[in-house]
Amino acid sequence: VILEKTPFQEEKVSDLLKKHTKLDLQMRNDIYSTYHLYPPAELSEIKTTVVYPATEKHLQKYLRQEVHLIRETWEDYKNITLPFIQSQSFSIQWVYNILEKKAEADRIIHENPDPCNGFVLVPDFKWNQNQLDDLYLIALIHRREVKSLRDLTAEHIPLLRNILQEGKEAVVKHFSVPGSQLRIYLHYQPSYYHLHVHFTALGYDAPGSSVERAHLLADVIDNLTMDSLYYQKRALTFALRADELLFKKFQEAGRV
Amino acid sequence: VILEKTPFQEEKVSDLLKKHTKLDLQMRNDIYSTYHLYPPAELSEIKTTVVYPATEKHLQKYLRQEVHLIRETWEDYKNITLPFIQSQSFSIQWVYNILEKKAEADRIIHENPDPCNGFVLVPDFKWNQNQLDDLYLIALIHRREVKSLRDLTAEHIPLLRNILQEGKEAVVKHFSVPGSQLRIYLHYQPSYYHLHVHFTALGYDAPGSSVERAHLLADVIDNLTMDSLYYQKRALTFALRADELLFKKFQEAGRV
Repeated sequence: VILEKTPFQEEKVSDLLKKHTKLDLQMRNDIYSTYHLYPPAELSEIKTTVVYPATEKHLQKYLRQEVHLIRETWEDYKNITLPFIQSQSFSIQWVYNILEKKAEADRIIHENPDPCNGFVLVPDFKWNQNQLDDLYLIALIHRREVKSLRDLTAEHIPLLRNILQEGKEAVVKHFSVPGSQLRIYLHYQPSYYHLHVHFTALGYDAPGSSVERAHLLADVIDNLTMDSLYYQKRALTFALRADELLFKKFQEAGRV
Repeated sequence: VILEKTPFQEEKVSDLLKKHTKLDLQMRNDIYSTYHLYPPAELSEIKTTVVYPATEKHLQKYLRQEVHLIRETWEDYKNITLPFIQSQSFSIQWVYNILEKKAEADRIIHENPDPCNGFVLVPDFKWNQNQLDDLYLIALIHRREVKSLRDLTAEHIPLLRNILQEGKEAVVKHFSVPGSQLRIYLHYQPSYYHLHVHFTALGYDAPGSSVERAHLLADVIDNLTMDSLYYQKRALTFALRADELLFKKFQEAGRV
């Protein structure tokens, strides 16, 4: 069970200040005073996610752990990371369910149905869609053989451009948030190996938007335009928790 | 009136899951489901601060400013950003004071005195040095004509390698924090135009460490190794507040 407090909803703030709200004074000094405010239940939603049954991997993901940066060369990728990915049986059935309209079909914000250069844009699980402050959407590509940033070449530029362009247009249309207020990026490492792109509100300090994990889609497109093999040459940095299996693989290879 | 949601208190989480809690299903897919949970008032405190009477200054401090991403091409840099930087009289006397040991001399963690490839490593103002969780150091280069990432070419690789290598060694020696737990990066745009590199604890979600502002030093070195003119070719993304002068310059040029 994952519990998360959600941002305030602007239109409910006046209710919060008026409605049956209990207020206890904590401290007063000159023009400043602080209070404990206890809002009625309907004004204090907690976003709750249940994963059932949860695997050891799900539990691991949420435990606090020592974290280290890895600088993965292309050779590391081929010799350590890729064999690791292939040995794992990550289920991405939930992605296929969305792409095949077997789940969340009513949640689709935009689709380009082209099997090669198309994608589906849906709200991320992490976003409750109540306020735009923490807007979070995911573009899932229709092609199934692209695992991550490491697989991308110039061949994928039309697909990536579609996501960037149509994604922005769909977000303006549905949520009136302009493209200049969207952070559009890929994760490396991603949490699942079916290529997807994150769209988050620029003002939202989204988890995984920091420089050691996020790669701006516009930068990815420019790097591939410059050199089709950019992501098959360049070392990439990412963080791993010390208890992750991939971290152990890097340790065994003497790369940590 | 300032309202702030507070972190969960560990000892109250079991109450949250048991006590009179209303739960509405939002979405279900495979093993995942999400709910709206409405906790009883006593479990959902909001920290409330009242400033009364509040001055104009108080209001300004909390007003939200609209922020937009700019995708700056090299031509934008030459035609808009560079003239803007040159027209401003940013004082960086405080940087020169550190480099010349006229200030903060006792705070220096490490120095490479070489006038071309040397630098000084000092704790950032934002770090009180009481705990390592928010460790924050700054490397200031001795050379004075390098304004930002945009000025870097292959010529600067020895300097950048020194900062990466010696900086890590100095942090292990002084603070016992290994290089694999350091995020080492440049800002673009920086807040002052004398080249400097940020060293922050990996576990610390430091302001300015997100993908739209931070550039990992290791990536910068690799990009310059690949192409000496990488940062004189590539478009770079950064965020600007709508009330900033540079934003107005981009608007006037029809680039926003």
